[in-house]
Amino acid sequence: MISFESDYDNGCHEAILKRLNETNDERATGYGLDGYSTAAKEKIRTACGKPDAEVFFLVGGTQTNATVIDAMLKSYQGVLSVETGHINVHESGAIEFGGHKVLALPSHDGKMDAKELEQWLHDFYADPTYDHMVFPGMVYITFATEMGTIYTLDELIAISNICKCFELPLFIDGARLGYGLMAEGCDVSLTQLADLCDVFYIGGTKCGALCGEAVVFPNPAVPAPAHFFTIVKQHGALLAKGRLLGIQFDTLMTDNLYFRIARHAVEQAMRLRDAFVSKGYQMYSNSPTNQQFVLLDQPTIDRLSRDFVFEQWYPVGDMMNCRFVTSWATRPEDVDKLIGAL
Amino acid sequence: MISFESDYDNGCHEAILKRLNETNDERATGYGLDGYSTAAKEKIRTACGKPDAEVFFLVGGTQTNATVIDAMLKSYQGVLSVETGHINVHESGAIEFGGHKVLALPSHDGKMDAKELEQWLHDFYADPTYDHMVFPGMVYITFATEMGTIYTLDELIAISNICKCFELPLFIDGARLGYGLMAEGCDVSLTQLADLCDVFYIGGTKCGALCGEAVVFPNPAVPAPAHFFTIVKQHGALLAKGRLLGIQFDTLMTDNLYFRIARHAVEQAMRLRDAFVSKGYQMYSNSPTNQQFVLLDQPTIDRLSRDFVFEQWYPVGDMMNCRFVTSWATRPEDVDKLIGAL
Amino acid sequence: MISFESDYDNGCHEAILKRLNETNDERATGYGLDGYSTAAKEKIRTACGKPDAEVFFLVGGTQTNATVIDAMLKSYQGVLSVETGHINVHESGAIEFGGHKVLALPSHDGKMDAKELEQWLHDFYADPTYDHMVFPGMVYITFATEMGTIYTLDELIAISNICKCFELPLFIDGARLGYGLMAEGCDVSLTQLADLCDVFYIGGTKCGALCGEAVVFPNPAVPAPAHFFTIVKQHGALLAKGRLLGIQFDTLMTDNLYFRIARHAVEQAMRLRDAFVSKGYQMYSNSPTNQQFVLLDQPTIDRLSRDFVFEQWYPVGDMMNCRFVTSWATRPEDVDKLIGAL
Amino acid sequence: MISFESDYDNGCHEAILKRLNETNDERATGYGLDGYSTAAKEKIRTACGKPDAEVFFLVGGTQTNATVIDAMLKSYQGVLSVETGHINVHESGAIEFGGHKVLALPSHDGKMDAKELEQWLHDFYADPTYDHMVFPGMVYITFATEMGTIYTLDELIAISNICKCFELPLFIDGARLGYGLMAEGCDVSLTQLADLCDVFYIGGTKCGALCGEAVVFPNPAVPAPAHFFTIVKQHGALLAKGRLLGIQFDTLMTDNLYFRIARHAVEQAMRLRDAFVSKGYQMYSNSPTNQQFVLLDQPTIDRLSRDFVFEQWYPVGDMMNCRFVTSWATRPEDVDKLIGAL
Repeated sequence: MISFESDYDNGCHEAILKRLNETNDERATGYGLDGYSTAAKEKIRTACGKPDAEVFFLVGGTQTNATVIDAMLKSYQGVLSVETGHINVHESGAIEFGGHKVLALPSHDGKMDAKELEQWLHDFYADPTYDHMVFPGMVYITFATEMGTIYTLDELIAISNICKCFELPLFIDGARLGYGLMAEGCDVSLTQLADLCDVFYIGGTKCGALCGEAVVFPNPAVPAPAHFFTIVKQHGALLAKGRLLGIQFDTLMTDNLYFRIARHAVEQAMRLRDAFVSKGYQMYSNSPTNQQFVLLDQPTIDRLSRDFVFEQWYPVGDMMNCRFVTSWATRPEDVDKLIGAL
Repeated sequence: MISFESDYDNGCHEAILKRLNETNDERATGYGLDGYSTAAKEKIRTACGKPDAEVFFLVGGTQTNATVIDAMLKSYQGVLSVETGHINVHESGAIEFGGHKVLALPSHDGKMDAKELEQWLHDFYADPTYDHMVFPGMVYITFATEMGTIYTLDELIAISNICKCFELPLFIDGARLGYGLMAEGCDVSLTQLADLCDVFYIGGTKCGALCGEAVVFPNPAVPAPAHFFTIVKQHGALLAKGRLLGIQFDTLMTDNLYFRIARHAVEQAMRLRDAFVSKGYQMYSNSPTNQQFVLLDQPTIDRLSRDFVFEQWYPVGDMMNCRFVTSWATRPEDVDKLIGAL
Repeated sequence: MISFESDYDNGCHEAILKRLNETNDERATGYGLDGYSTAAKEKIRTACGKPDAEVFFLVGGTQTNATVIDAMLKSYQGVLSVETGHINVHESGAIEFGGHKVLALPSHDGKMDAKELEQWLHDFYADPTYDHMVFPGMVYITFATEMGTIYTLDELIAISNICKCFELPLFIDGARLGYGLMAEGCDVSLTQLADLCDVFYIGGTKCGALCGEAVVFPNPAVPAPAHFFTIVKQHGALLAKGRLLGIQFDTLMTDNLYFRIARHAVEQAMRLRDAFVSKGYQMYSNSPTNQQFVLLDQPTIDRLSRDFVFEQWYPVGDMMNCRFVTSWATRPEDVDKLIGAL
Repeated sequence: MISFESDYDNGCHEAILKRLNETNDERATGYGLDGYSTAAKEKIRTACGKPDAEVFFLVGGTQTNATVIDAMLKSYQGVLSVETGHINVHESGAIEFGGHKVLALPSHDGKMDAKELEQWLHDFYADPTYDHMVFPGMVYITFATEMGTIYTLDELIAISNICKCFELPLFIDGARLGYGLMAEGCDVSLTQLADLCDVFYIGGTKCGALCGEAVVFPNPAVPAPAHFFTIVKQHGALLAKGRLLGIQFDTLMTDNLYFRIARHAVEQAMRLRDAFVSKGYQMYSNSPTNQQFVLLDQPTIDRLSRDFVFEQWYPVGDMMNCRFVTSWATRPEDVDKLIGAL
């Protein structure tokens, strides 16, 4: 069976594995105070063009979202997200567990519309009863989105400007940041993204690491919340052997590895998408990233399932919206086989 | 100025005031263990036709919703409510403060549609990723709703049946229960309502009391959560001088006072509604209860505001949706004056 | 039966009842925005000698403690209290429900020792692992304490200075503030108390009101947390008919009523204490306030219980620590009867 | 420098590293549904002698404690622990973040005394005000403790019996379970430990793994809380690449590796302890496990610090309580060097 099930079903990239082997016998202080973590943080600052950025390593995406959001919100504030946002759907209520409401806006193929955001904020403050309501305290978007889409630079700027105008921090969930920045037609650079938001993370789990997300507070004018280390610990998100995260990000950030492997995944996804389209399949969304959504009928699903693994998301009319995911580990010959089978 | 601003801007009904005067010098044990509370509970059991019901007195609506919902949900569960539900809009995130997500369904003039509820539940359990999501743990509806509407008996039965089918407790927020049960055309009795849900409350604050909501667990097969007394205390909702609540509900439940005064308010509201309609105003919703919503233009608002107090909710096209509320304290002659001014 | 069971088993003081009667037919905006509340706040500012103080009215003590503490702490902070502090014992975990640890110090007849507080804080910051621990974020003391004792002015100054030194807000729980300030030998004035802390409350429930606690942020340099109104609502502590609290505090703060009735209670308690002592009973603590703790043997308890109500707290050796409480409602002739029965 | 700083400053045991290398190219479903995890769970069931045990893999100790405790407690319950318990000191308030109080008992070299536990529970239920207090909902102990000590079988039985008597689940934090069970003189087997508690975990992070704790619900009569998977996700403790945990525990549980490497660490610690004692140093506690606590004066600390790394915990009189930790990675020749330097 050839799998297009997810981008986190392999081990780690071979370069990471090599480094884990090389460093295994070394001793290192725990909790992220080790030298590997220090080096990785410096490389991230350089990659972002933010020499004063603060960087923290956490283990997984849900805990990262929950920790960052809870740390940055006041108790009476909620977080604005599109309805399909990961925090609103697939985190088992981790944000609410921390006491905060997810204030849901419409999703446009996974993206937030800047004008709708502005209107929502305008309406909120125009409501004479707003002090009986949950205050907006942060804007959360994903890059790439859960639907595989990405924001253009202009779209990001528009959202960022509204956030500034309403003094709301902008948080970009980068669980698939690599695939987003390396997407076909992406006109946003890592530096620009870091300029436009107040906190974001570089997702390792889905881009080559065994685990790990690098949270970046790029702008010294909006520093990490005081005692963020302790907050991370309180949320159960502080890894004792922080070296595991440091080594992995140090490797990913060396020689641009993170972006090279993401680019590979996107290239394979584009080949797949082009084949779907040229063979007359209907795409569910127009994704320029490593997740492709296509509508399949049941006979096709049955036929493809004999040799390939992929997820069936939900019915659309009498078709099924199916997801095919590539990763750093996807082999071109396996994509060839799938294309041949379409 | 004559006020139609709200149903909680007066003191209390004169019968309550009289009893507060009569009993003031008596001593009574605190925390609801007093004789007045005991008597009031018994009268509520009788009124509901539920001799084994458990009854608790809390101070206000938001704390009652937050306490009941948190007490009945597991940590990984959320509460289903229509988007316009009080818990989803006007409680400053009190439900999320307790760790729970409000799972929002569409609102139909403030009401939940049984078929949409069923479809939502069906879709939830059909989603292969549901164990990464917030589980439905309770259904919350309001009677009367925030828009002044009420459920018919058939509608309540349909929702109740779906709840039973999915083993979800049904919670009816009765902050305006009196006005709902006494509404024009209401075909639901208190006994029937108690039969159809697992927990509800009889709102005192908006129906003649200074404060107080009576939470009823009508069905011994679904008893109050263990140590509910302690949970109430933990949520800051246990009144030290519980007598204040006991005396008020004892009075309200004597000689049907609660329902008589609610009926009075509804009658005045119906007179007002009929006048609006006969004079060609457009009602925003068709409310048979004490809250009337009507679309007014700015000149009319300006004119009426010289003599009358009422709330402007939000613009609808170039009109404003305005709310006029009657209560037990509304004088017929004041309604006459407003009708005369239309 | 004559009761010395508690200071919250009567109705309210007759002056309050009179005002409730007089104002009952007036209409007033909800949520504390009424004129009675405005007037009461102004009288409190005057009484405290703090013309710029911010004042909020909440319903009960537990919700007040939980709301103030949660509003003022960061998520990673806890509150320092003596072990016997109300928040650490008798609030069913309301502080922890809000996510915060109570950091317990030894109790000295209910009081915190300034030197022990300083040592604790010194030790905390000297611990190299302190960022894995709960940070101290606030100091909580009660005045009068749960054991009936009070702080001297020097003791308060010492605690206040340490708080300033460590930049910790000092919160004084004044559920029994009147009895504390009117205690025999008390050398602290309300103005001094307001000078020495960052937030405190004037307890109404136990000093003549039906319910209500007035939270005071006396010092403009340490204002109320932003959007404290919304935080109060979120905690279920915002009373819809805020007039009920406004009217009561307006009355209590008129002509010094609050302190006069507290003084009466203390005088009766002192008569009782002197009688206990002169007849050879052993006091459990030396309380100058309205709560008297005395060790009684079982035959005495049995004998007194025939005519008097009082609480048995816990055994001390083969004696029982019993509590006798006076209030604004205690009649001198009832104290005479108890003294006669000793 | 030779380090005795901690048992989590190395990478992982070589057998684990080998397996990570061998399996890296295989694909596996995420979230613990992979074959490695399945195999590891089965081996754990066998090792415990509990064929029906439920097993879950989480990443770290704090998140494991917070998740298990929150999942098993009702909202109004707290967890009983000795004062020095990890959850009470070094988890930054993670338990309180979940809404629960840690009810602290005295520590006896890190251990809970069964009689004191019984007395506490007896006193709690004898207090007439107990329903205003935090209910005991679980007993938490560590094995080995934070002070390096272990419970005897009789001590465990005594605690377990009291838990049964009061219907409280017993939770054993096994962050250092291997070192505890392999301790000098330990008379408790893994099977017996599993018999005596309701939930425990096998700590991987401190015993050879890169990360990972295996939570075991040994007794089908006390199953894992419903939807524990979702609760784990909600607490941010579900690892996407669950294979990382499965592979590690599969390796540790093969050929008794986990216990063999723990035994090695204990042997080296015993050599060290004997040397301390024979050279006249005063041990702070009598630890039979891999953590040794010894009182050193400043000149000795200065001298040893030139070649060895160890932690200084806190002053005891004019000495310092210093901690020396061995692990699976401690080389006998390094212990020799330290012994030579004493």
